[in-house]
Amino acid sequence: MIVIKIGGSEGTDFAAICADVAARIAAGEKFVLVHGGSNETNQLSEALGHPPRFVTSVSGQVSRYTDRKTLEMFIMAVAGKVNTLLVEALQRNGVNAIGLTGLDGRLLEAKRKDTIKVVEDGKTKILRDDYTGKIEKVNVALLQSLLMQGYTPVVAPLAISTTHDAVNVDGDRAAAMIAGALAADMLIVFSNVPGLLRDVNDPASLIGEIPRERLEEFAQFAKGRMKKKIMGTGEALAGGVKEIRLADGRVAHPLQNALEGRCTVIH
Amino acid sequence: MIVIKIGGSEGTDFAAICADVAARIAAGEKFVLVHGGSNETNQLSEALGHPPRFVTSVSGQVSRYTDRKTLEMFIMAVAGKVNTLLVEALQRNGVNAIGLTGLDGRLLEAKRKDTIKVVEDGKTKILRDDYTGKIEKVNVALLQSLLMQGYTPVVAPLAISTTHDAVNVDGDRAAAMIAGALAADMLIVFSNVPGLLRDVNDPASLIGEIPRERLEEFAQFAKGRMKKKIMGTGEALAGGVKEIRLADGRVAHPLQNALEGRCTVIH
Repeated sequence: MIVIKIGGSEGTDFAAICADVAARIAAGEKFVLVHGGSNETNQLSEALGHPPRFVTSVSGQVSRYTDRKTLEMFIMAVAGKVNTLLVEALQRNGVNAIGLTGLDGRLLEAKRKDTIKVVEDGKTKILRDDYTGKIEKVNVALLQSLLMQGYTPVVAPLAISTTHDAVNVDGDRAAAMIAGALAADMLIVFSNVPGLLRDVNDPASLIGEIPRERLEEFAQFAKGRMKKKIMGTGEALAGGVKEIRLADGRVAHPLQNALEGRCTVIH
Repeated sequence: MIVIKIGGSEGTDFAAICADVAARIAAGEKFVLVHGGSNETNQLSEALGHPPRFVTSVSGQVSRYTDRKTLEMFIMAVAGKVNTLLVEALQRNGVNAIGLTGLDGRLLEAKRKDTIKVVEDGKTKILRDDYTGKIEKVNVALLQSLLMQGYTPVVAPLAISTTHDAVNVDGDRAAAMIAGALAADMLIVFSNVPGLLRDVNDPASLIGEIPRERLEEFAQFAKGRMKKKIMGTGEALAGGVKEIRLADGRVAHPLQNALEGRCTVIH
């Protein structure tokens, strides 16, 4: 069982990953896919005249401020377009995919953080009405039932909150939670970088291997989005995942490339 | 087992229908919901500068011309927003809903009609690259498995074509096909009219009952969208559904109202 996260940033080759996944499924491997959709959401938000607003939390994490209108655009772009077209691409490759959001069957239950403390122009502010959440529970039985029936779940990073609101959740951490809950053999996180780099500007500075006990030490190299990926890595390891690979989603045969070790392997 | 179609036209009270459905599910009844989303699609298309184009087939049927761009907007509005918010509304009412499109697990397989003959300005034209389809197969096993596990499927009117393209399908006929495949006890079709009217301008001219053998005779009263609902009725009856109700989705307690017979009952 392999859980794959496909990043929503520009450059990731969804079609190439789908083709690779299809080949492994035909050979008997089982997969759960989790995707992002930030790029699509940004494009839709701009087109609809409600441009995205990114905020920096007091701990330095950058995230999308999600008011109800942004949540609905996120739903359209991510649960709608990205998820459905990914299912279509997999079906074209002979994979019987099923698209789900975390709301479906309460697949992902999250604690909503309706108030966030952010730093803007050097000042700390409180933002209310935020529809984001932190996943606390995964409906493993639903995933296992679908996998047993031969379906490949494709999960959009939305959850249902404990107070029954739809909330936006971080895709990397959703994938980590799912991989942990399924005790997956491997979690592969595809994005538009080759893996964890010592120097973010030098693709040749790829860190090939990180023993799990040294994860914190290597976390210092993570910049921007990579911080959440490393955080997700820790969660996945704690959840029981044996190995995590941070890999490039832009190369030819991205899955094959990752399985052959041209990525950052944490184990 | 009751299959419900909730129309996508303006006026239909989704929240009221969800609350009614939740009460019946709590009492032990099983449901499958199918929804539309034409109004949401129109709004999104307008906002994105690609306004909807409705065409009239040579047989007089009005439908949305769905090029690839329109298909993607339909997916965002219908599979994204309408489906996910319906799942959220049901979850708020304690119903463990699962949103699906017909692509998911090949729930609805359709024959794509990529070329349509339409009449425009009195002339017959051929339109190509249309992404609409006619459903030929329902994956009943998937629906039954979800129902058995206590989930309530919520289906968006999209299908996977036999050539693996996502296609837009008619929601009324999707509901009819699903009801037939499940041999449902009842199919209830909610829209923004009280049922089949003798005079489309007079709500008091509601036809209360139609014996199935007289359906064709009564079909003459159907105008506009109601034509497809009557066509769906015939398909549902042929598929083995015992009873179809065409009911008002705008009133207080729409489901209760329909079950009490204030609608058009075909049996």
